[in-house]
Amino acid sequence: MKISHIEHLGIAVKSIEEALPYYENVLGLKCYNIETVEDQKVKTAFLKVGDTKIELLEPTSPESTIAKFLETKGPGFHHIAFAVEDGVANALAECEANGIRVIDKAPRNGAEGLKIAFLHPKSTQGVLTELCED
Amino acid sequence: MKISHIEHLGIAVKSIEEALPYYENVLGLKCYNIETVEDQKVKTAFLKVGDTKIELLEPTSPESTIAKFLETKGPGFHHIAFAVEDGVANALAECEANGIRVIDKAPRNGAEGLKIAFLHPKSTQGVLTELCED
Repeated sequence: MKISHIEHLGIAVKSIEEALPYYENVLGLKCYNIETVEDQKVKTAFLKVGDTKIELLEPTSPESTIAKFLETKGPGFHHIAFAVEDGVANALAECEANGIRVIDKAPRNGAEGLKIAFLHPKSTQGVLTELCED
Repeated sequence: MKISHIEHLGIAVKSIEEALPYYENVLGLKCYNIETVEDQKVKTAFLKVGDTKIELLEPTSPESTIAKFLETKGPGFHHIAFAVEDGVANALAECEANGIRVIDKAPRNGAEGLKIAFLHPKSTQGVLTELCED
C-alpha cells in the first residue's frame, strides 16, 4: 500500500457548535466546511492543518455509531484516515491478503465525495482506520 | 496561536516490536527512529506520513502513564501534537488567557529534542493535546 499522507483525523464531539470555538479561537484553525453524511447519521466539520484535516463528528441521531462511541468513551479521537495512492479497492485487497480484518469489503462514499473503506481496530493495533482515495 | 501542521500523533501500543509489522508491512510506512524518553518511561518509534509523524508509545515501566493508559483504555490513540510557529511558551500563555487548563505550565523537553507542553483533555474536547516547537 502506498500512503501519501493522513487525509484526516476523525474526532467525536457532542456538538460541533460547542467544539468549534476551541479549534478556531484557541488553536487558530479555520473550519472551511460543514456537511451532513446522511447514511452515517453524522454532521461533520472540517478544519485544515498542514497537509491533513481534522474532521469533527457530531451524531445526528442516537443510532449513529458516533452517538454510541460518545456514550461509552466520551468525546475524543475516533479514527485516522490515510490517503492511499493506488486506490482503496487495491488497498483493501492487500489488507485482506495480509489477514487484516476489514469493516468494508468494498469502497463506499464518505464525506467530501471520497471513496473510503474502514479497517477493523482489532487488526490495526486498536486504531479505527479509514483508507481514502484522494 | 499559529499552528503550521500536526507534528505527530501519539499512539499507545503494548509492544513496538509487535506493532511495527502492521505499520511497515501493511501500511507501507517506514520507522526512521526508535528512542527511549527516560523521564516519560516510554520507548518511542517514529514513522513519517506526509508532513506529520506517527509516534508509537510503549511503556518501559508499569509506572509509565502509557502503561496506565493501556490498562484502562487498551492500545490506540493517545495524543495529538501540534507544531506552533510562535513558540510553546507564547502558546501556553495564550491558552491560559483563554481559560484552557494546561498540564505543563512551562515548556519541557520531549522526544526528538523538541520543546513541548501538554494541554488537559478536559479543556480540549477530550483530546490530549501537545504543543511542540518545531
